[in-house]
Amino acid sequence: MTAVKVTVIGAGSVVFSLGLVKDMCLTEGLKGSTVHFMDINEERLDVVYQLARRYAEDLGADLKLARTLKRAEALQDANFVINTATATHNEYFMRRRREMVAGHGYFYGGTGMPEFHNLKIMLDVAQDMEKICPDATILQAGNPVFDGTTLMTRETGIRVCGLCHGHYGYRRVASMIGLDPDKVTWQAPGLNHNIWLTQFIYEGQDAYPLLDRWIDENIEKYWEDCKDTGVPAQWSPAAIHQYKMYGLFPIGDTPRGAGWWYRSDLDTRTRWYGAGGGGDTPEGRDRILKGKEEKYAQMKAAAYDPDVRPVSLFGDQKTSEQHIPIIDALVNNHEYRAQVNVRNNGALPGIPDDVAVEVPAIVNQMGIQPIRVEPLPRKIMLECILPDWLQMEQGLEAFRSGDKSMMLYGVLDSPQTRSYDQAARVLDALFDIEPNEPMAYIEDIHDHYHWPKNWDLPA
Amino acid sequence: MTAVKVTVIGAGSVVFSLGLVKDMCLTEGLKGSTVHFMDINEERLDVVYQLARRYAEDLGADLKLARTLKRAEALQDANFVINTATATHNEYFMRRRREMVAGHGYFYGGTGMPEFHNLKIMLDVAQDMEKICPDATILQAGNPVFDGTTLMTRETGIRVCGLCHGHYGYRRVASMIGLDPDKVTWQAPGLNHNIWLTQFIYEGQDAYPLLDRWIDENIEKYWEDCKDTGVPAQWSPAAIHQYKMYGLFPIGDTPRGAGWWYRSDLDTRTRWYGAGGGGDTPEGRDRILKGKEEKYAQMKAAAYDPDVRPVSLFGDQKTSEQHIPIIDALVNNHEYRAQVNVRNNGALPGIPDDVAVEVPAIVNQMGIQPIRVEPLPRKIMLECILPDWLQMEQGLEAFRSGDKSMMLYGVLDSPQTRSYDQAARVLDALFDIEPNEPMAYIEDIHDHYHWPKNWDLPA
Repeated sequence: MTAVKVTVIGAGSVVFSLGLVKDMCLTEGLKGSTVHFMDINEERLDVVYQLARRYAEDLGADLKLARTLKRAEALQDANFVINTATATHNEYFMRRRREMVAGHGYFYGGTGMPEFHNLKIMLDVAQDMEKICPDATILQAGNPVFDGTTLMTRETGIRVCGLCHGHYGYRRVASMIGLDPDKVTWQAPGLNHNIWLTQFIYEGQDAYPLLDRWIDENIEKYWEDCKDTGVPAQWSPAAIHQYKMYGLFPIGDTPRGAGWWYRSDLDTRTRWYGAGGGGDTPEGRDRILKGKEEKYAQMKAAAYDPDVRPVSLFGDQKTSEQHIPIIDALVNNHEYRAQVNVRNNGALPGIPDDVAVEVPAIVNQMGIQPIRVEPLPRKIMLECILPDWLQMEQGLEAFRSGDKSMMLYGVLDSPQTRSYDQAARVLDALFDIEPNEPMAYIEDIHDHYHWPKNWDLPA
Repeated sequence: MTAVKVTVIGAGSVVFSLGLVKDMCLTEGLKGSTVHFMDINEERLDVVYQLARRYAEDLGADLKLARTLKRAEALQDANFVINTATATHNEYFMRRRREMVAGHGYFYGGTGMPEFHNLKIMLDVAQDMEKICPDATILQAGNPVFDGTTLMTRETGIRVCGLCHGHYGYRRVASMIGLDPDKVTWQAPGLNHNIWLTQFIYEGQDAYPLLDRWIDENIEKYWEDCKDTGVPAQWSPAAIHQYKMYGLFPIGDTPRGAGWWYRSDLDTRTRWYGAGGGGDTPEGRDRILKGKEEKYAQMKAAAYDPDVRPVSLFGDQKTSEQHIPIIDALVNNHEYRAQVNVRNNGALPGIPDDVAVEVPAIVNQMGIQPIRVEPLPRKIMLECILPDWLQMEQGLEAFRSGDKSMMLYGVLDSPQTRSYDQAARVLDALFDIEPNEPMAYIEDIHDHYHWPKNWDLPA
């Protein structure tokens, strides 16, 4: 039993933070630990703090809680830092940006401009950690996990592990075809949001033939049944088409980010992702935003209402998030099998050592130990993994060099861009978009990027 | 002085073959050598043979000539094989294909479908060489040099060297700004058709500042002067824009194959490549075809007209092609500085060993010795070299595996493709296009590629 200090950056994500608190409370080995919440939004921070405090009471847990608006204060003496902060992956900002770029001919924000603000947050946090708590491990929850984990491992000496829950898609695959997910032996390595079911074993047998039979016999009917309600991305026509192309089932977020030709406009999305085009559409995100607003209003009310106990809202069962089990494994040697994003170092063949790959890992007191997996099929490497890798490298080099023409290249490289002038215009508009609240805490994008020497755009 | 046997595959390219003959005749060290012409077209073969025979007479050269329609016969006892054969890079076929795919919405044949026929020719030749003349060196002249040289070095034990003349673009750069090209020390490594002027030295000084000054002072006026006649790609607005983006001058064919946004339609091409959109347009190629037809008619007449001496047509000065100087260097130790496409093995950092890179080389009796060059700037690697490499690998894997869905991916990956259905339709049309003459000698594309198991296209 080891008491640790866990710092949560961007703690205002209420559901996420309360899930962490619950998992901490329900983990015997972490009794006496401290959770330090940090957020730039005082109201949200207080909502989380009040709910967490009362939740720990509900669960009778020995958990210390603290809160701050100052990152440096939160990082002091931290053993683990969970970073869920984001600037641009905010539903309000995404809607504003989406609507703005639609005026330049881009559907669903697909301009291709590389990330800046969230990478900058991640690097700022990791660099602060180097100064304040250099022995702490960062568990990166905010996106982009792939790019950000790679960046932090390259640019700092901090131990970095990116986490996602997309790999649980294997459970959805198993359940659908009538298998108990708990009895499945599986592997789905790759890059974050780009992972492939390389092993799928049930009761000692390869379960792919069962999957094939289920698809042959049921998929058309399933889609027909769902034609008004929509299908999950994991079982969408896009996912099945990817499977037919690649021979391995794409897991979790993989079909959501698949080839542009599944996603170029609403009609196309409806064909490949079912009714309404799936969740990744303007309407889908508006629904998510509405849901989040309602959830937050409910949370806020509950935080200050003595008659509502948090346990009635959040329950008393552990979440499926990996953060706390990983911490418990590292400090108490309670071995845990995780799916992590870490510096490759040969775990996934065919990808450079200094790139963050998503692979299974054994976690115990010896550390987070990635399992070296078999190479992915060459076709998947060439058409899915390496293009994604290359795009990540382009974005990170743009970030590292501050070369604005690399941001322009990213836009030109978008399958939705139709002309050089369109790209140049939307790039200007993206640089000049009105900042949101978190951006006040991040370097101005105009200060970070500059055109190359002697640059002049031919008219 | 060493007599060798040089076999020319696809010898019916009259101007190319006669250039080789001239260079052979004018190379003292190759006296007594044999040139064996092979082509599938009997008429063209005879035209070349007759002209070459009389040309050697004109030059008083001791050169033996032979001809055959049979590849195996031509390869017998060959020391060098110069392969200029092509199936699809034929002006008539390209026009037919261009017009066909235009009906599917593609400008200038830009469908993205990976190469098949020319790769197959190259591999067939190299595999025949393994059986018939395993110690011979192949000098690959026909395109795609990058893909084909890589393929042959991977799949056979033959010594392979791909050759191009695009690197002489450095001479055009030097001349334009008033420098004597013969006095320039230069380096322009990369991948074939994707090379960058990393060194540009004149009279002991870096000549880039001279280039910059010339551009600042003269480029606008130059373009204005050329506004009716057109500009060479080497000095086009596209080339200058690439230079501004990348900080190194793109050489030879590099600006021709630059980003899609310079080339998506005729108006765009006119803006970036000058009047008429440069040579790489339907009209431009029609002009080239017409010129070739006229040239061939003239050659054919000359071949059988005792009053026309070939020397009056082809002159008595060596060409700038590298084939014969390389042969002379290899067999007679007459050291030659070449620009070659060979298996990388570390010559160009950041590219796998088994990929053909274009680098300078010292050639003498010890062999073709690539010079290890400095790494290209990371931005050029990420935005120009690696995307090109990845596309090559995708095409070669499609070729190796025979997986038709990888051909479809190539089409989907074309920046001109607007939808999945368009890609599927044009792919079918490309597979079913009426074959031309050389294709009768190559495996049928329908036999080579098959859809993956269980493939069905969602309607």
